[in-house]
Amino acid sequence: MASYPPAFLSLVENLARLPGVGPKSAQRLAFHLLKGEAAQAQSLGKDLGNLHLKVRLCDECGYLAEGPRCHFCADTRRDQRIMCVVEDPRDVDVIEASGEYRGRYHVLFGVLSPLDGIGPEQLKVRELLARLDGVEEVIVALDPDVEGDATSLYLTRLIKPLGIKVTRLASGLPMGSEIEYADQVTLARALAARREM
Amino acid sequence: MASYPPAFLSLVENLARLPGVGPKSAQRLAFHLLKGEAAQAQSLGKDLGNLHLKVRLCDECGYLAEGPRCHFCADTRRDQRIMCVVEDPRDVDVIEASGEYRGRYHVLFGVLSPLDGIGPEQLKVRELLARLDGVEEVIVALDPDVEGDATSLYLTRLIKPLGIKVTRLASGLPMGSEIEYADQVTLARALAARREM
Repeated sequence: MASYPPAFLSLVENLARLPGVGPKSAQRLAFHLLKGEAAQAQSLGKDLGNLHLKVRLCDECGYLAEGPRCHFCADTRRDQRIMCVVEDPRDVDVIEASGEYRGRYHVLFGVLSPLDGIGPEQLKVRELLARLDGVEEVIVALDPDVEGDATSLYLTRLIKPLGIKVTRLASGLPMGSEIEYADQVTLARALAARREM
Repeated sequence: MASYPPAFLSLVENLARLPGVGPKSAQRLAFHLLKGEAAQAQSLGKDLGNLHLKVRLCDECGYLAEGPRCHFCADTRRDQRIMCVVEDPRDVDVIEASGEYRGRYHVLFGVLSPLDGIGPEQLKVRELLARLDGVEEVIVALDPDVEGDATSLYLTRLIKPLGIKVTRLASGLPMGSEIEYADQVTLARALAARREM
């Protein structure tokens, strides 16, 4: 490594900081980009430079947005009485692709996980409670695993006393799996068969 | 995917073009970069933009360089009579780290592999032959596998008639290994190349 040009070394080090990319893969990627077209590396570089300038998280729901509000929150035709709570922005797209849901979304950015030091303060729980005016049903669409169960229960205890119905995606999703990888039919069925908690 | 902002989609598509990165991993990487510090994405972006401007391949040996010649080729103290032929620039660093070699290098950028359409024209063979003035020994440091064997044989047939000694890295038992776990081919080679003590 020591004899690589500094610009190459810096690229390798930056690539190795990505999740799932070790020092060897980082070198392999850097060599691939160097041997390839300059345009490919530069296009990727431009996108990375623009990322934080052009993309932000929606002030309301936390989904990706170009301005202060994402297109879901800006769309007044969506059912304002139903709120779907998800762990991650990627989950929004999977649920949207099922075609079964026309309400609003709220991204928690994680689930409760005391062992990792993630409590309610680390999640967008306060922001969720502030958005419940006029909401009649909160669908908790968290992964069917231990953390998802605990977080769903926590949210139910907070929201149900406000007189708002809390439902959860029906089982039908295999236990231990992740919503992100669910197929659309399974997800559509799980949405249709959601049950009150 | 359809509802992501264009700048984000473009990043995901560019990431998914990297070897070993599929569409799902590309999304995961893009989200990681978006959730992280803007400085991280921008630093990586800057490195990628600079890559082809600041790093090139040495006109002589093919190793990474900042100018027309790499620091190995520019170093006149290195033994000009020995040339080490490797498959990939990464191999140069491994050999250099062994501390046993002080000659010059030549990167072939691959090995013969007729099934993949890689013949001598796709490798830096002509460039190697043009660099053999004053060279007394060519060390062929290619992998001990079928393609490496074929390429070594091919190079030997080209170079030996020029009156230049051609050698190859010894194959045998790796240091620190146990004979009990050695594979048959390695053991056969180690036996055939046994040396008197």
